[in-house]
Amino acid sequence: MTCTKKTRLPTGQARAAAQSLAFAPFAFWAAITMRDQGLLDALERAGAQGLSEAELAEESGLSPYAVSVLTDFAVDLGLVERSDEHLILAALGSVLLNDELTRVNMDFTRDFAYHGMARLPQALAAEKPAGLAHFGPWQTLYQGLAELEQPAAKSWFRFDQFFSERAFEALVPRIFAHAPTHVVDIGANTGNLAARCLGHCPQVQMTLVDLPDVLELARQRLDDEGFGDRVGLHSADLLDPDCELPHGADAMVMSQLLACFSVSQIVALLKRAAVAMAPSTRLYIVELFPDRQIHDAARYSLNAISLYFTTLATGNSRFYRRDQLLPLIERAGLKVESEEEQIGQGHSLLVCRRQD
Amino acid sequence: MTCTKKTRLPTGQARAAAQSLAFAPFAFWAAITMRDQGLLDALERAGAQGLSEAELAEESGLSPYAVSVLTDFAVDLGLVERSDEHLILAALGSVLLNDELTRVNMDFTRDFAYHGMARLPQALAAEKPAGLAHFGPWQTLYQGLAELEQPAAKSWFRFDQFFSERAFEALVPRIFAHAPTHVVDIGANTGNLAARCLGHCPQVQMTLVDLPDVLELARQRLDDEGFGDRVGLHSADLLDPDCELPHGADAMVMSQLLACFSVSQIVALLKRAAVAMAPSTRLYIVELFPDRQIHDAARYSLNAISLYFTTLATGNSRFYRRDQLLPLIERAGLKVESEEEQIGQGHSLLVCRRQD
Repeated sequence: MTCTKKTRLPTGQARAAAQSLAFAPFAFWAAITMRDQGLLDALERAGAQGLSEAELAEESGLSPYAVSVLTDFAVDLGLVERSDEHLILAALGSVLLNDELTRVNMDFTRDFAYHGMARLPQALAAEKPAGLAHFGPWQTLYQGLAELEQPAAKSWFRFDQFFSERAFEALVPRIFAHAPTHVVDIGANTGNLAARCLGHCPQVQMTLVDLPDVLELARQRLDDEGFGDRVGLHSADLLDPDCELPHGADAMVMSQLLACFSVSQIVALLKRAAVAMAPSTRLYIVELFPDRQIHDAARYSLNAISLYFTTLATGNSRFYRRDQLLPLIERAGLKVESEEEQIGQGHSLLVCRRQD
Repeated sequence: MTCTKKTRLPTGQARAAAQSLAFAPFAFWAAITMRDQGLLDALERAGAQGLSEAELAEESGLSPYAVSVLTDFAVDLGLVERSDEHLILAALGSVLLNDELTRVNMDFTRDFAYHGMARLPQALAAEKPAGLAHFGPWQTLYQGLAELEQPAAKSWFRFDQFFSERAFEALVPRIFAHAPTHVVDIGANTGNLAARCLGHCPQVQMTLVDLPDVLELARQRLDDEGFGDRVGLHSADLLDPDCELPHGADAMVMSQLLACFSVSQIVALLKRAAVAMAPSTRLYIVELFPDRQIHDAARYSLNAISLYFTTLATGNSRFYRRDQLLPLIERAGLKVESEEEQIGQGHSLLVCRRQD
């Protein structure tokens, strides 16, 4: 399976690709089982010589039957290759074993997305995260995150943090290039960005905006890290059109926040941000734009993950294309002062000011 | 996604293929939703001119958001292509819409295999069809088939019949080339093969061997079709090592039966067949051998479907490779008299006799 487009395939190839799609869930489970049951690991240790099916059975503790049925398909998937009677780890198998992004994405699918994704049709029809019902009775994922059970919670948080940490790392020096004294983090979540800002600059005051439960967790953590006296909390439901945002900051940040909102919710939120901003306030918007990725695989992944927003997070949001988001910023009374691409892990940074 | 092997991919391509695997279940649901919600159909009707996202929303009844999130990923999957502001049906999308094999396979995955497949690791570890628990408390699928609920039952039977009907069509004239007067169908199932044999030759007597419940359904159906007086029933649990098979037939048939048994069960069953066979009796074994397919996609599909046998049917069987099955036939005291490949839908026919 590859991420490249197949728009003008000959019929035979299109038919082959169609079977690959029809059995795509089989491919996922075969691949992750090859990893989780230690087969890829055993093959890596065996090196270029590889292992026979019998040796692989001994190494993995699986039966000869289990090894044969799994590895025959793994050869088709390109995880391993067969040379005479031996199986040898292929490049794709090595990536599944060793690449952190791949591991995070696969664990996310295994523990969280797989079961809910079956409700994609219902989610699209209703614009509700219909797949969430598999986990709890929540309107959106964000209401249920604190109650999410294991292993779903662990894999979701690792997935979420994998992408955001890389954005934060790139974002913090860019925010402090303008020496702000007061930074408002809108959608502060676990306080990871706040902790980085507070650690980066010993004078800065931070105000965290999020739901009360979420803020309480972030406050405890920032207290523990000794940042408590420079942290303000501003409890708000960002979906509430009447909620106000804190006024008068030098910098406001929305890092990977807008992907959690619908188009109309984004406009409403940005309008409230504009009201809270002084003419000199900068709003730092960080997003992952599928239409601004260098690699096909990155665009493919973002467009796939958008369907997780549909089915398991909000029902009405996504990784917006840049061409979808820019008009919303304009409509809210803001203008893009500067733009930088490919910071973090394929993130874009839009620095915005009030239009007036 | 394609079915070709990727054994020596450069790292970048391997990393891309890995993300495709990580999000493979997303790909499945996006593709089948494009089909089921009428988007592929609307695009086919629109022809080379295609449709805008707004037109597609109108045609499908989905919101502009739903259309945008779904079609952006569908472009990555190669189902549709984008030309300026219009979306146009691609070759792969056309196959998903119009190819019967693809439709049968996708429906099978959607309605039956998807949820159970998540228990592949447990099934492999225990050699039990652990995914069946999603549907009922059965030891094997065959015990539960009569109770399987909709839409799982409908999609499973269509899938099963799609493959077997094409084999039967090719098999019947080959059996009757030797003018048998008594044919024993081992694993007679719904009686489809029996009906074809009885219809093909007005003199032939058939004996059907299967579980009592299954035989009763087949008997009713053959009675209704007016074949009742030429049909004998032989109730047997083929897994029972003490069960005897009917003696003295000219021809015995095992069509796509051995894939439902483990290696040791196959040897035991074939030994009992050898006991029941006269020196002149021919045993017709029809199987789908993954290692004897012409097209990569066919081998890929068979190896995928083998994981359904593991997870949702028996826990210990598969589409055996030819090189796995031949020694079992030998070990049971049988010899292959003749062999024919690519009958039906990629099936192989082995005509066997007693070794003595």
